[in-house]
Amino acid sequence: MPLLDQTIRGIHPLDTAAMDAAAARQDSLTKPPGSLGRLEQISIQVAGITGLARPVIGEKAIIICAGDHGVAVHGVSAFPQQVTSQMVCNFLNGGAAINVLARHVGARVIVVDAGVAAHFDRRPGLVVKNVARGTADMTKGPAMTRAQAVQAIEAGIEVVEDEITRGLSVVAVGDMGIANTTASSAIVAAVTGRPVAEVTGRGTGISDDQLSHKVEVIEKALAVNRPDPSDMLDVLTKVGGFEIGAIAGVILGAAAHRLPAVIDGFISSAGALIAGGLAPLACDYMIAAHVSAEIGHQAALEHLSLAPCLDFDLRLGEGTGAALVLSVVEAACKILDEMATFDSAGVSGAT
Amino acid sequence: MPLLDQTIRGIHPLDTAAMDAAAARQDSLTKPPGSLGRLEQISIQVAGITGLARPVIGEKAIIICAGDHGVAVHGVSAFPQQVTSQMVCNFLNGGAAINVLARHVGARVIVVDAGVAAHFDRRPGLVVKNVARGTADMTKGPAMTRAQAVQAIEAGIEVVEDEITRGLSVVAVGDMGIANTTASSAIVAAVTGRPVAEVTGRGTGISDDQLSHKVEVIEKALAVNRPDPSDMLDVLTKVGGFEIGAIAGVILGAAAHRLPAVIDGFISSAGALIAGGLAPLACDYMIAAHVSAEIGHQAALEHLSLAPCLDFDLRLGEGTGAALVLSVVEAACKILDEMATFDSAGVSGAT
Repeated sequence: MPLLDQTIRGIHPLDTAAMDAAAARQDSLTKPPGSLGRLEQISIQVAGITGLARPVIGEKAIIICAGDHGVAVHGVSAFPQQVTSQMVCNFLNGGAAINVLARHVGARVIVVDAGVAAHFDRRPGLVVKNVARGTADMTKGPAMTRAQAVQAIEAGIEVVEDEITRGLSVVAVGDMGIANTTASSAIVAAVTGRPVAEVTGRGTGISDDQLSHKVEVIEKALAVNRPDPSDMLDVLTKVGGFEIGAIAGVILGAAAHRLPAVIDGFISSAGALIAGGLAPLACDYMIAAHVSAEIGHQAALEHLSLAPCLDFDLRLGEGTGAALVLSVVEAACKILDEMATFDSAGVSGAT
Repeated sequence: MPLLDQTIRGIHPLDTAAMDAAAARQDSLTKPPGSLGRLEQISIQVAGITGLARPVIGEKAIIICAGDHGVAVHGVSAFPQQVTSQMVCNFLNGGAAINVLARHVGARVIVVDAGVAAHFDRRPGLVVKNVARGTADMTKGPAMTRAQAVQAIEAGIEVVEDEITRGLSVVAVGDMGIANTTASSAIVAAVTGRPVAEVTGRGTGISDDQLSHKVEVIEKALAVNRPDPSDMLDVLTKVGGFEIGAIAGVILGAAAHRLPAVIDGFISSAGALIAGGLAPLACDYMIAAHVSAEIGHQAALEHLSLAPCLDFDLRLGEGTGAALVLSVVEAACKILDEMATFDSAGVSGAT
């Protein structure tokens, strides 16, 4: 069976027995029941994901998927296309925001070249799975072939499976790709049916005029390609990106192996929409890190029924919000595992 | 000069030159300007607080102030009064939620007995500054004398100054005290002028009937005592708590020594109201960790013009939300200090 089909079939519902056991333990710990709110919920979700009543977070990794976009020729970004490959080098040299935050939370960074318009020599921390040197211009036809869409997703599955063999216990996804908010807005509009203008924002920081132009470019891409919202591979093929497909693959691979997947911002959520459309059960394995300043993000999260952990007005991508939330997920599991119970601590219960 | 007066006079405005330098550096780092939102804002605030253009967070501590409340006799809490001292022991034994989160973020825990109704032997991690064995019943008269109010605040100042001599660079405040949401709601109602019912919640988890009763108890305390909202010492004296005074002292002491103070939930924010009323400039040194599930918290934060970092539906206190945000503050400063610039990384800027 092809890897993608096999992975989708390998995704099962959460383990409700483990969730019940975790919830019961939460209520025995020295605090008023429910008083740790979201932390308690996350710990119970991770119990369901892992099938363990007291899950322990070990290895953490952020997988940054990078790719270039043919649509960049239309001036939809504030930055030139070569910034994608320059930022890949910045990631590998440890100088980007995601490197700082990954070190802070004790997570490894893996950079995946899913389709950057540049050649990279082998370097530690870089996985080359280049589907092509950037997508085609989606205003003139599909961004990629259907075979390339599958290849991008399977690249993400392979990368996360590789990390799982090295002991990974929770993964965060992130992105890099000049013009990828354009592709993500197109995906969100196609999947949710919302008007393009409602789900298209300023990305790296474009002007009002550039924003109007970006909306027109996306509307044209949707009109030319007519992606089928009931067929996620069609959506990815016609208006997606290689890194967005790889992000979807990382999420699907994590879910198939019962690992939580922390979703970063707008682009990662576009990947999550693809993953969730291909395998609705995968949504239960997702933890939404934050709601971004990019206006389409809320629409994507609502479609996935995900509540964001943070609202920090972030709009950088790379996995920066997800890195912070890796630490929150770890904290939530430690609360469940390490706290004393009323009995063990000799603390009186509620009267 | 008495310690409290001296401390208040030692609080100065933020260093705008350091803030400007930090903001300029943020804009030179390899990310679109402003794209790290709240993290950038925090780093610039900490620059202003410390007077350093690139502040580095070293030692972190959570100071948990504990005290008992005479008003507990009225059945305003779901838990019996002895839980205050039992939880102090739980903190010292490392079994409480705050211990788990403090370990997770690499912060020390200091427990201050500001006025618990119990005797504690000397133990590492415990500072005994017991003003009295619990406050008086505020429905019958002032919770404490004005001299005791000053003593409680000065206890907090002394504790944080002691930690600063050991190298502390950021402090989080937390609380423990059965019935202290009752005192905090009374403070918030007195200071903000809002109706008691609008700022009184379920604390550790009381029923509808208990909540109505709690509102009546607070209304009675305010009617009997008539605290003067233009005199914070009067408010603390009449309807406060020893731990709430100590929290105010920790915040004032931190501000006087140019350290950021991370404010936890509802009770810590009641302490912050006292501190901010005594020294309005101290508000600039505060970082609000989260908005709690306790309904009066939002009113307190609005009065202080503080925007909370997290919204995790927490209602435990102890400093649990503040512990998580200590890590966010550290991350924000690392972003400012450690990231590569466009120049140093050879990344192209915006076109």
